[in-house]
Parts: sequence; C-alpha cells; structure tokens
Amino acid sequence: MTSPSATQDRYPHQNEPIWSRSEKTIARKAFDAALGRELHEVIQETQKMASQIQQSSDLWDLEHYLTQRRKEIDRKYDYRYSHLTLILGKLMHEGWLGEEELHGLREEKLKSIRSTGEFLAKEWT
Amino acid sequence: MTSPSATQDRYPHQNEPIWSRSEKTIARKAFDAALGRELHEVIQETQKMASQIQQSSDLWDLEHYLTQRRKEIDRKYDYRYSHLTLILGKLMHEGWLGEEELHGLREEKLKSIRSTGEFLAKEWT
Repeated sequence: MTSPSATQDRYPHQNEPIWSRSEKTIARKAFDAALGRELHEVIQETQKMASQIQQSSDLWDLEHYLTQRRKEIDRKYDYRYSHLTLILGKLMHEGWLGEEELHGLREEKLKSIRSTGEFLAKEWT
Repeated sequence: MTSPSATQDRYPHQNEPIWSRSEKTIARKAFDAALGRELHEVIQETQKMASQIQQSSDLWDLEHYLTQRRKEIDRKYDYRYSHLTLILGKLMHEGWLGEEELHGLREEKLKSIRSTGEFLAKEWT
C-alpha cells in the first residue's frame, strides 16, 4: 500500500485516485459499453437456451442461469471511483472492454488498470 | 368435518378416503397429464418472452416469471392421497384437467373433486 506521504494525487483520507471530469466521462462511457456488451451476450444465450427447451429441467436451468448472471452482473458493475481501476481492469481482462476505450485517462490510472488485468490473467492461467 | 362414526370408507386415523389400486392409476395419469400441460404452457410462454427480449429488464422479468412458476408448480403438484381430491379439483377448475380423465374414480371422490372446483369457481367470480 502507498504511504500517506506519497499520495499527492489522492484523497488523503481514502487513498483514492482523483478522477477529473473528463476522465469520469471516459470511464463511464467505457463502463456502460462493457455492461451493454455483457448484457447483449446474456440476451443471446437466453434466447438460445429458450429455443432449445425440451423439458421442465431445461426451464429451471434457464432460471438458474439468469439468476446467476444477474447476481454476477450486479456484483461486478458497481460504479464507485474508489475501485474503478479494479473494475475496468477486470472488464478488460474478461474482454468486455478494449484499452483503446480508455484513451484519455492519465497514465497512472492506465497502469493500474493494466496491472489488474495482468494480475487476473496470471491468476487464471 | 365428518365424524369418526361416518368414515367407514376412510382411514379412521386420518379421515382420508381410500384409493383403490385402479383409482390410483387413474389419478396419477390425470395428475401427470395436467402437469405436462401446465409445463408445456410455461415452455411456450418462456420462448415467447425470450424472443421479445430487448433490454436487461426483460431478462430479469423472465427470470422472475420462471421463479414464480416453478414455486407455484412445486406447491400445487404435491401428490399426496390425503388431499388428492383437492388438487384434482383445483386442476379441473384451472382447466388443466377434464372430468372425463377421472372416469373410473368412485362417485364419492368425483363429488368431492367437483365440489372443490365449484368452490374455487365461486371464490374467483
């Protein structure tokens, strides 16, 4: 963890990076685009599963799938500046977000986002 | 409630009607057929809802619909002889079962099933 003396660009009481107005706009747009893509995938998978329903267990499998995805999406897309670099890093790692969409963020934040992505990539290989 | 002295055709300790082997076969077949029809309707409605999904709220509406129907079906299709006439009456009232499917049950049971159906019909009009 960074010591308080090294946090000139952070809120001293929370040790959080400061997001400028333009950075907030960029991050929000990227976040919303990633969410839209992930939801689009859930819609497509739902329609595929629904079209293949043959028996009652397929119905409850679809229900279970929807419940799991809703909970996962609710948990993941929690837009708070205090951990936004982690969220964006995770979304990049999962392929919902391209780095080019974050163009305009300060290098410090991009580094933090990339490093989260790299950490997750190592964890899952 | 019927007094113990009037329950010659019942299990004395539970006040339940006795189901003969052939009546059990008829009841089970009718029960399964009703369940099959209800599930078929849920499958059709699910496929219709899925094909019309436009946005995330439609996904969670489908999830909610499936959860509600699963719970309702689980609750309703509880095959126990102790209240089978009530269940069959309810299924007839809801249109999942035709009286002709119960042909072969003793008149006493048919009366009980019809009377449940009539009671529910009055309750909901």
